Amino acid sequence: MKQNKYDDSAFFDQYSQLPRSIGGLPAAGEWETFRSMLPELKGKRVLDLGCGYGWHCRYAREKGALSVVGVDLSNRMLEQARRMTDDPAIEYRNLAIEDFTCAEDEFDAVISSLAFHYLKDFGELCRKLHRALVAGGSLVFSVEHPIYTALAGQDWHYGGEGEKLHWPVDDYHVEGERHTSFLGHKVTKYHRNTASYVSSLLQAGFILQGLSELEPDAEMLRRNPAWQEETRRPMFMLMAAVKGSADARF
Amino acid sequence: MKQNKYDDSAFFDQYSQLPRSIGGLPAAGEWETFRSMLPELKGKRVLDLGCGYGWHCRYAREKGALSVVGVDLSNRMLEQARRMTDDPAIEYRNLAIEDFTCAEDEFDAVISSLAFHYLKDFGELCRKLHRALVAGGSLVFSVEHPIYTALAGQDWHYGGEGEKLHWPVDDYHVEGERHTSFLGHKVTKYHRNTASYVSSLLQAGFILQGLSELEPDAEMLRRNPAWQEETRRPMFMLMAAVKGSADARF
Repeated sequence: MKQNKYDDSAFFDQYSQLPRSIGGLPAAGEWETFRSMLPELKGKRVLDLGCGYGWHCRYAREKGALSVVGVDLSNRMLEQARRMTDDPAIEYRNLAIEDFTCAEDEFDAVISSLAFHYLKDFGELCRKLHRALVAGGSLVFSVEHPIYTALAGQDWHYGGEGEKLHWPVDDYHVEGERHTSFLGHKVTKYHRNTASYVSSLLQAGFILQGLSELEPDAEMLRRNPAWQEETRRPMFMLMAAVKGSADARF
Repeated sequence: MKQNKYDDSAFFDQYSQLPRSIGGLPAAGEWETFRSMLPELKGKRVLDLGCGYGWHCRYAREKGALSVVGVDLSNRMLEQARRMTDDPAIEYRNLAIEDFTCAEDEFDAVISSLAFHYLKDFGELCRKLHRALVAGGSLVFSVEHPIYTALAGQDWHYGGEGEKLHWPVDDYHVEGERHTSFLGHKVTKYHRNTASYVSSLLQAGFILQGLSELEPDAEMLRRNPAWQEETRRPMFMLMAAVKGSADARF
């Protein structure tokens, strides 16, 4: 399903008020971890899938990327992204991630922030990105964590006083559509387990370089005590992988 | 903590009545997946950590392993293991996994079934096993899944009629001791999140080759309908990794 909630005016207006929409990367709790997993971007041809307002595209250019292609299904997001830069080395394409095509070895790095859990077929995407990357090229992405997407409710289990008792998990191995709610609007996400994410990467020929479940560290908790809740259940999962050359598996 | 519950007579007697104690590998639900993740064992020097009755040790020899070392803290388990074989190529050592030492490059494959979640320091173990293995050598192991070990209760959240509502997760990122119960006896396990397992492997120099959360397939459900429950939350996690040579990372 190629959803385009972001071109729905009411949804877009609400999304544009989120801290991460206003404050950009520093306002996104997962950004420091995401950044730490990125490869050297200097001189690289970078692809950003689900680029939204283009924060990561502009960051890549700040870090010396040679060129950046940002892909997003939402025209309104891209309009906003284009307003924020006149950098000719950043090209925005108004496309669903599933419809994006490119030449073999066209990119040195592919990044994606919180978009892949909207895709039905992650295995197909991995094969496509493996072809799109040069040998040694990197894929770094974040998704909602499988513990977070297992149940469509995506909420705590509450006690009688409204207290958060624990996070409920069910149907963990029942992969597929989850009809959830985001900013009061219906959104369809695709639940996959962790093994699916990892296996799809490995089967496509990637070598896993890092996996994070965004465990808050002391510094994160100091800066934002609300993160204490994030020690109770993981909300995001981040992975970094590299395209190995055929003779470099072991 | 080097626990030795298995030399407690009451515990041992109960453990010896479990289906997997009587029926061996085929009676263990994770065995087919575990087996599928094993490397070729023919001619290999194999180490089995937490070998118990020695089922995997004997399997390795059946598959042509050159030699097998089985390590277990329980003397009673090893007595039983020794009674089941007179194979001079299998050596059982009565040791805690933490106390096991060997020469560099001494093994071609290390296997371990449901033992590592009893170890406090998985990172240290990974470094030790990386030294113990030859380049290209394999590590294949199973543990209780982080979703399963997060809460010490290790049980469903029940409704008023005793029905299993969902699996509760909490303190997922609070790693460390969990004082749980197994066969009515107190047992200490160590909870780690998935990122910790993966990161410890990668940081020690392993290349991840496979990760399974033991998702029941149609055949497993056909043979044992009770496995339907295993689609609701993962109980075990299995990983296969290989020691890459220094120049083979990408």
